[in-house]
Amino acid sequence: MSKRNVCVVIASRANYGRAKYLMKAIKDSENLNLQLIVGASTLLERFGRAINVIRSDGFEPDRTIEYVIEGETLLTQAKSTGLGIIEIATALNDLKPDMVVTVADRFETMATAIATSYLNIPLIHLQGGEISGNLDDRVRHSITKLADYHFVATELSKKRVLQMGEEEFRVFNYGCPAMDVITHININISNEIMKKYGGVGMNVDWTEPYILVIQHPVTTSYGKGMEQISETLNACKTIKGITKIVLWPNIDAGSDDVSKGIRIFREQNKDKGFHYFKNFSPEDYIRVLNSAQCVVGNSSSIIRECAFLGVPGVIIGDRQNAREHGKNVVFAKYEKNDILAKINDQISHGRYDSDKIFGHGNAGQLIAKQLEIIDLQKQKRNAY
Amino acid sequence: MSKRNVCVVIASRANYGRAKYLMKAIKDSENLNLQLIVGASTLLERFGRAINVIRSDGFEPDRTIEYVIEGETLLTQAKSTGLGIIEIATALNDLKPDMVVTVADRFETMATAIATSYLNIPLIHLQGGEISGNLDDRVRHSITKLADYHFVATELSKKRVLQMGEEEFRVFNYGCPAMDVITHININISNEIMKKYGGVGMNVDWTEPYILVIQHPVTTSYGKGMEQISETLNACKTIKGITKIVLWPNIDAGSDDVSKGIRIFREQNKDKGFHYFKNFSPEDYIRVLNSAQCVVGNSSSIIRECAFLGVPGVIIGDRQNAREHGKNVVFAKYEKNDILAKINDQISHGRYDSDKIFGHGNAGQLIAKQLEIIDLQKQKRNAY
Amino acid sequence: MSKRNVCVVIASRANYGRAKYLMKAIKDSENLNLQLIVGASTLLERFGRAINVIRSDGFEPDRTIEYVIEGETLLTQAKSTGLGIIEIATALNDLKPDMVVTVADRFETMATAIATSYLNIPLIHLQGGEISGNLDDRVRHSITKLADYHFVATELSKKRVLQMGEEEFRVFNYGCPAMDVITHININISNEIMKKYGGVGMNVDWTEPYILVIQHPVTTSYGKGMEQISETLNACKTIKGITKIVLWPNIDAGSDDVSKGIRIFREQNKDKGFHYFKNFSPEDYIRVLNSAQCVVGNSSSIIRECAFLGVPGVIIGDRQNAREHGKNVVFAKYEKNDILAKINDQISHGRYDSDKIFGHGNAGQLIAKQLEIIDLQKQKRNAY
Amino acid sequence: MSKRNVCVVIASRANYGRAKYLMKAIKDSENLNLQLIVGASTLLERFGRAINVIRSDGFEPDRTIEYVIEGETLLTQAKSTGLGIIEIATALNDLKPDMVVTVADRFETMATAIATSYLNIPLIHLQGGEISGNLDDRVRHSITKLADYHFVATELSKKRVLQMGEEEFRVFNYGCPAMDVITHININISNEIMKKYGGVGMNVDWTEPYILVIQHPVTTSYGKGMEQISETLNACKTIKGITKIVLWPNIDAGSDDVSKGIRIFREQNKDKGFHYFKNFSPEDYIRVLNSAQCVVGNSSSIIRECAFLGVPGVIIGDRQNAREHGKNVVFAKYEKNDILAKINDQISHGRYDSDKIFGHGNAGQLIAKQLEIIDLQKQKRNAY
Repeated sequence: MSKRNVCVVIASRANYGRAKYLMKAIKDSENLNLQLIVGASTLLERFGRAINVIRSDGFEPDRTIEYVIEGETLLTQAKSTGLGIIEIATALNDLKPDMVVTVADRFETMATAIATSYLNIPLIHLQGGEISGNLDDRVRHSITKLADYHFVATELSKKRVLQMGEEEFRVFNYGCPAMDVITHININISNEIMKKYGGVGMNVDWTEPYILVIQHPVTTSYGKGMEQISETLNACKTIKGITKIVLWPNIDAGSDDVSKGIRIFREQNKDKGFHYFKNFSPEDYIRVLNSAQCVVGNSSSIIRECAFLGVPGVIIGDRQNAREHGKNVVFAKYEKNDILAKINDQISHGRYDSDKIFGHGNAGQLIAKQLEIIDLQKQKRNAY
Repeated sequence: MSKRNVCVVIASRANYGRAKYLMKAIKDSENLNLQLIVGASTLLERFGRAINVIRSDGFEPDRTIEYVIEGETLLTQAKSTGLGIIEIATALNDLKPDMVVTVADRFETMATAIATSYLNIPLIHLQGGEISGNLDDRVRHSITKLADYHFVATELSKKRVLQMGEEEFRVFNYGCPAMDVITHININISNEIMKKYGGVGMNVDWTEPYILVIQHPVTTSYGKGMEQISETLNACKTIKGITKIVLWPNIDAGSDDVSKGIRIFREQNKDKGFHYFKNFSPEDYIRVLNSAQCVVGNSSSIIRECAFLGVPGVIIGDRQNAREHGKNVVFAKYEKNDILAKINDQISHGRYDSDKIFGHGNAGQLIAKQLEIIDLQKQKRNAY
Repeated sequence: MSKRNVCVVIASRANYGRAKYLMKAIKDSENLNLQLIVGASTLLERFGRAINVIRSDGFEPDRTIEYVIEGETLLTQAKSTGLGIIEIATALNDLKPDMVVTVADRFETMATAIATSYLNIPLIHLQGGEISGNLDDRVRHSITKLADYHFVATELSKKRVLQMGEEEFRVFNYGCPAMDVITHININISNEIMKKYGGVGMNVDWTEPYILVIQHPVTTSYGKGMEQISETLNACKTIKGITKIVLWPNIDAGSDDVSKGIRIFREQNKDKGFHYFKNFSPEDYIRVLNSAQCVVGNSSSIIRECAFLGVPGVIIGDRQNAREHGKNVVFAKYEKNDILAKINDQISHGRYDSDKIFGHGNAGQLIAKQLEIIDLQKQKRNAY
Repeated sequence: MSKRNVCVVIASRANYGRAKYLMKAIKDSENLNLQLIVGASTLLERFGRAINVIRSDGFEPDRTIEYVIEGETLLTQAKSTGLGIIEIATALNDLKPDMVVTVADRFETMATAIATSYLNIPLIHLQGGEISGNLDDRVRHSITKLADYHFVATELSKKRVLQMGEEEFRVFNYGCPAMDVITHININISNEIMKKYGGVGMNVDWTEPYILVIQHPVTTSYGKGMEQISETLNACKTIKGITKIVLWPNIDAGSDDVSKGIRIFREQNKDKGFHYFKNFSPEDYIRVLNSAQCVVGNSSSIIRECAFLGVPGVIIGDRQNAREHGKNVVFAKYEKNDILAKINDQISHGRYDSDKIFGHGNAGQLIAKQLEIIDLQKQKRNAY
């Protein structure tokens, strides 16, 4: 029997964080052949050119596609989706995969989902059924209705996907593949490991306690990103005697806004113990999360990876407010004092027990196993 | 209070058939202002340039957008969707409507749905919740998950939309606006009315009995269109002493295939009582349906308009096989003899009683009334 | 030394007719490696899918790109150019050729020229410096100013390219590569050879005398194509006792118009000795030209191939009116009687002597030899 | 007689600097009506959103079009051109201008030129016939061959345009419209005027002597921008006791590179008398040029505006090396010591006499007068 061609489309560094161990498992499978399309922000300097990490991990893309229209407004995000569809469709038509894997819920994911469905190629969706309380929800659920098979990350997600009318045999819960990295590496941080991120203003002692800030723009409150990040950073500033590590936000409508907020804060707050990073490899990202006293912001990794790791988190605002979560997180408003109080509470509490609601860190392999055997001919029906 | 700007996007003649009386109602409303984008196959000669009908009905487009990539393959359909998103997004960003109305389930509709959602403009979807058993289903349900308000055509559709997690206050069943034309015009046909479609080989006596064939390509059985239409036409050919009216298919992946089948049949069957038409105005289309002894093929109007009108129909193949339907239709396989038998049965039976499962022919006005008052601020939540 | 990668972009059947023997020579060269992109109308059923001929000649494309936006208006032609640039750029960025070859003067050629120049890849242009008296001239000269090396077809063309400021060492006159086919094949026609084009209404006896009509739309008189072709066809109809072979036009703004004119004429003139063909292989096209009593229309092959072959031609209208030409052609207005008189004159005259103003039929090999050695580093300067 | 619709397409802040007084003259004309399309980098925050200046000058765009694909590589520049063509064509098809004005030589200009020519709309080109010795030359001359009328800036440029075969009556030398601003405003600088650019690190005393640095990326030496700007900045650093004003570069392939060079230098050289600005209004830009002791870099304004103003300039590298220039400039290599020597020479020399080789500062009005009367029907011919 010839191998099944599985085309994975990676369109952001977050995508890659999720898909990496699945890609490894596909590559290692005797029954599958990995095809790889890399596009959008993974190719951009400004977002750390994740393509370099992908290549150095041993994955060579079959196609690279630039399709981010500059501007970071809602308009350019819509147009980028359109351009992505055009070029991904051309690439898929050439590569002729037996199935296409797409991850999560953002505009780049939608481009992959549309191109794939319209070409009548079976679509494999990771991370369906989740709810975060914003525009991403629409896109995620919309992709669910286009997808042929769903590899969800939690039981509740599975229930939601089924309720939307998807057939039971199409839905698998193997947990979130982003957890896989945790079980595959040594998660201890060291200054030795982190020195590759060195550079201007980055001389952090990673063995000392630190707070980690990861705050992305929220598409439904477009235009307020600068103000929102400013509350967070000012709260952190109040906490003396501890390092603060700040990550630059994802590309997204409004990310210029959050970035601007960070830039202004940085200009006005030199030598206040803040350090700013663009990007970590998925492995080092886990290490950075794992050693934090507290992770603050709205990144989904506060809910996922930190639950598994037992790291305390403070979720700010409504980007994640409807998400399923473990005991390790508390919620705060976009308000300096509230944020400050919650961070202090969490630091006092210290580490939590590991919580496996997002899986056991072996999703990649389990998913690959399924991709070897799922029925690719069967036409999708709605269950009602 | 200033008027609400309602932007209707029309991307095929079928779209216009559905939306026309809603557009009239919006135009007549004191609280609404109609904006109009016309694109895709409505601008193409080969599909009868519906734009001309739209203009002669008194609607002047704010934008016309060419976005059909030639080829009529799955690939070009996907790419057309991408191009549509790019240019519709630019147009919407300029026109700044308070809401956008999109109709049904095809690739052009998806382009509108994506552009609108990504711009954070409330999306109004007509015809959600239906099931036809093919790729259109995915697209339709996918659009449902993007839309803010749903104007469905039947109770069963409403149930499905709710089950997919849409909030109850967002779903309205006023019936299908395509029915509206029936209640707004004199539906009697005459040669006088039809002479405007005159031309080579078109001298039909419309007061005599005829069978009407409307068969579109089926995206999930791409590549078989020529063979499928051939079975139908050969079945019709067997029935002597009755005129056969054939409509050219919609633009779609595979429509070249169906068109080719018709062309070949036409060449080989001159003077066999077959007549071929590209397009009718929505009004004349109703008249042509209403006077048919039997309507054969897979057009959704066999299920909808014909149910209301009580015209017997034979649905061929699986394009509509899961659709809710009235007593007026029977189903046949893609097989000459089966088709022939079913047509004969239906002609013997004669007209059915009018069935209002798709509404009472006043949907346009009822929908417009709702558009005046629906809450456009309220963020969408999933009901579970 | 590693081979030089030469990427040839073929975007119409005419392109292929010109480039075929160059492609063969590149493939056969020990110092060159052929890369092939095939796109636009070569992929379309309606234009005879030249891709099939290309493949059966043993050339396998590295990329196929659909970029014709449907409509055949000036607008869609402009937009197709834009889409072509986007996707050709992506392909070239992937294939990383050492140089790119583009042919002639149409919108697809411009797409290749822009994508290539902007990527800083040396651009090789065939057929520069010619003048035909319409929009094509602008495009052709515009491409000349983008190109690095020019392989022109006549001495006069060379003079014009130099006058536009191109450096002398960049311009070569090896004649037109479209002539090459003539010297590489047996140019005698036979019914045996032509039977592969058989089908409805095509039973021509190719050994009997015939007139050949090849009339393309003229972009500068957009909208008059139907009327223009009608004059030609009616002139031909007057000439009794001789077969008339009509070729469907190229894809172009306005080609729907010419096609429509042909369709209407065909409907009204059955059994008048007219036969219609979509496409011939380049070889059979030469045979069809060579055996014609007279070739009528505005195809550039009347001027080129027919000069070499000595076949009488009647050029109608202004599409070619400024072109350099041999003794074998006379010019007629878009007027039935004038056309008729000129055809009769030419049939009376009979064959002309072979004229080598467009080369000796070995351009492909001579060009390939140059491509092996041209300086690809040297920055272009203007000669003044 | 109805007014002629003149559509001006502005796609960069430099475009606007050139076209502003022509736009004013068109707006003021009784025989012309201004249509305005604004796109590309004029809409981007990162390039100072020139759209805001345009609006505050009283020009309201008919269309705004985002078409910059992010990445600033040769590839994304090519793709941006393609996207620009698509959307500009749609806009022009809607606006139906009698002619379109495009400025200069960059990729955004090419997009306008192609869309306009392909739509058969007369194209008016400003700044043709110049030579700068890089890729821009190809694009500029290529546009010349597409354009119907040429408004060149110098006699030498006129000669070149004619030599390329353009007809004499199509070429006008009224000088460069960028000079117009100089004659329409009070060109004296003051801290009062400049305080609107205030902000972090920008407290310049504009009445004190300063050196001005304006260095753009050079497309033909792509990848070396960082190194090149670094030589310049280090040369300036050596000159003590004088303020250095640095402008961020234009959007272009490689501009990330130059920007990065500036950023790194800035980080390492705080408090060394350097100040960085994103953008000035065209008026203030003239004031900033006029008061400089010396202007250093490769901006064309060193050659143009500074010639008129009599400000000493040092041109670095080959971006402008073939350009016609006045006595006010000297040339330096990309080498710190050479640059330093030339700057010192020029500061010692002091101001030059005003040189009018680029016109008298009334081009806008003279061009507008011509646009009222040029023949828009006459088909373009090549003069040989």
